[in-house]
Amino acid sequence: MDYDDRALKKHKELKGKLSIQLKDIPDTKDKLSLYYTPGVAAVSRFVASHPDNARDYTWLNNCVAVISDGSAVLGLGNIGPYGAMPVMEGKCMLFKHFADIDAVPIILDVHRADEIVAAVKAIAPSFGGINLEDIAAPICFEVEERLKAELNIPVFHDDQHGTAIVVLAGIINALKLRDRYNISECRITIVGSGAAGTAIASLLELYGATDIVMVDSKGIIGPARQDLNTEKKNLLRFNAHGLEGTLEDAVRDAHIFIGVSQAGILTKDMIQTMQDRPIVFAMANPAPEIMPYEAKAAGAFIVATGRSDFPNQINNALAFPGIFRGALDNGITAITDEHKIAAAEAIASLVENPTTELIVPSVLDDRLVPSIAKVIL
Amino acid sequence: MDYDDRALKKHKELKGKLSIQLKDIPDTKDKLSLYYTPGVAAVSRFVASHPDNARDYTWLNNCVAVISDGSAVLGLGNIGPYGAMPVMEGKCMLFKHFADIDAVPIILDVHRADEIVAAVKAIAPSFGGINLEDIAAPICFEVEERLKAELNIPVFHDDQHGTAIVVLAGIINALKLRDRYNISECRITIVGSGAAGTAIASLLELYGATDIVMVDSKGIIGPARQDLNTEKKNLLRFNAHGLEGTLEDAVRDAHIFIGVSQAGILTKDMIQTMQDRPIVFAMANPAPEIMPYEAKAAGAFIVATGRSDFPNQINNALAFPGIFRGALDNGITAITDEHKIAAAEAIASLVENPTTELIVPSVLDDRLVPSIAKVIL
Repeated sequence: MDYDDRALKKHKELKGKLSIQLKDIPDTKDKLSLYYTPGVAAVSRFVASHPDNARDYTWLNNCVAVISDGSAVLGLGNIGPYGAMPVMEGKCMLFKHFADIDAVPIILDVHRADEIVAAVKAIAPSFGGINLEDIAAPICFEVEERLKAELNIPVFHDDQHGTAIVVLAGIINALKLRDRYNISECRITIVGSGAAGTAIASLLELYGATDIVMVDSKGIIGPARQDLNTEKKNLLRFNAHGLEGTLEDAVRDAHIFIGVSQAGILTKDMIQTMQDRPIVFAMANPAPEIMPYEAKAAGAFIVATGRSDFPNQINNALAFPGIFRGALDNGITAITDEHKIAAAEAIASLVENPTTELIVPSVLDDRLVPSIAKVIL
Repeated sequence: MDYDDRALKKHKELKGKLSIQLKDIPDTKDKLSLYYTPGVAAVSRFVASHPDNARDYTWLNNCVAVISDGSAVLGLGNIGPYGAMPVMEGKCMLFKHFADIDAVPIILDVHRADEIVAAVKAIAPSFGGINLEDIAAPICFEVEERLKAELNIPVFHDDQHGTAIVVLAGIINALKLRDRYNISECRITIVGSGAAGTAIASLLELYGATDIVMVDSKGIIGPARQDLNTEKKNLLRFNAHGLEGTLEDAVRDAHIFIGVSQAGILTKDMIQTMQDRPIVFAMANPAPEIMPYEAKAAGAFIVATGRSDFPNQINNALAFPGIFRGALDNGITAITDEHKIAAAEAIASLVENPTTELIVPSVLDDRLVPSIAKVIL
């Protein structure tokens, strides 16, 4: 049975991956009366008059919503809320397994930014944190910005920041190995200018990058482009030398290639035009921008992908469980840029002796969550 | 330690009553790849193109949202979403314990009917059913009506229909015992004209009642009243004889008293003006409209309350677990009036030999859920 069939069979057998568990079983009249009426009235009265203490008396202290409108699910595109549900349940599974966080999948039947913001704000008191997931760019930017500004619980769009944090962790260790390269002197070419690409550029800039060339399906995002929307115009600031042109032009002379785009767009010939022994993160899923053995054959020094069957898997699951564990445990109301950099450094530090085949830890490394959580302060 | 202190202590100790449980533990790379990327993509693709099958591959088949805006929590009034959370978690606990349904508490930070409807519609694909809870009248009526019309999953405002179903179950057995009374010949006085009172009147009318006098804080809802809002004007149709006047006028000559109002408003003197050996349901919580021993002393034949420490507890938990179990298992998209009557009859039938002290089964009776579920067809 092939992989897809196995996944379908397993999901149908389980009929979903999550269930609700009770912390105590209300199997006596006394327990029913304590946990429900009339006893719960005392708890409700107390919480109503001390809303900041709601966390101590309800599951808010450990509960995160994983919210998607299904508009950019995996590499499948806009497949709608029902199509998103298996992925959101899977994400909740990772939250529970890796960080013991009770995550609830919420799929939305609205797709405009103002509608998504209104719906999430309306239900926000139900949760201790909000993980936005698989919402298409550019709407995801406005949604996250507004929710961060208007809610007092952490809001984190994982496709942006989870990806950016893990990329930075990988870059930190890659640059340790490729020790002639300092990030401030590197040209970094990022192909894919949606949620992930934009967040990666922003975080690398914060970490010291000064020359980031962003590329979308029409070529380099340069000052001569007439077709840029507001979000893409914001990316022009990364392009320190005002570069214009094609993907080939963007890759030529770059030290670092970061792909969050599509299968096969990076060729061996292009890698040979990059700086000496370049760093190549080819993270398109499921098929990368170039296969690792081809990239290596063309001279790449370090290759990372999004896949578990190659070395150096750049996987958001390295970051988000620890980020939210720390935010919930430490009562953090917003995930800041400083948190993101600290998390990337914490992830990178878990690889004591990086090699070209080992720049990030395994997602199964049980030091990850505590190491990250303790820097989300 | 008194009751309230015990409830507070227990809730703080548990830090909430719910958690998420995984149906399988993703502790290998293979399982991670089946339940999350890349394997889950096949499931998402399939569900996106067959949304009616989402139930078979996700927890939608067993998942209900328990939704409140905190505007009418227990007898505590409008205490806001955080105050509602302990009650909603408690309700979810009952859903799980009694019916093995995975219920998720959702508290809303919006309170206008259109905002509540928009928020619930936005998140509705996340759930297999919607249990509305503790939303104040008259907003609750518009919210439920619109959601029922606009969603294709069961929407059930338990404060209305759960209460009405259990009251009808109790009335069915009470009338078996008081066998000279036929429901079509009884005057039924309902004190309290909010969500519960309105739904009780509607269901009793469907079951054959023809003379229902509704009372609110200003007296009988009669045709001369100038202060009635739209919802209360709708209640005039129950008042077959156009009765006007006070609570006393409403109770005089009634066969059945149903109170969903407030403590102590029904006196022994008033009961003595009712028909011979009347039926008295005094369901105000925590203190009933009249204490059972007083009602009995004044001549009441059968007395029911909302309390577990007296006989004949009229408790919504008798109904809602089985209603939703049936709706989910049988793929029902709306709870109809016929379902409500069938559920009430199913509950009543579980008391093989009703007595004046036993007109409804115990909430701990494990025949309840299967007996009700099988009539929700």
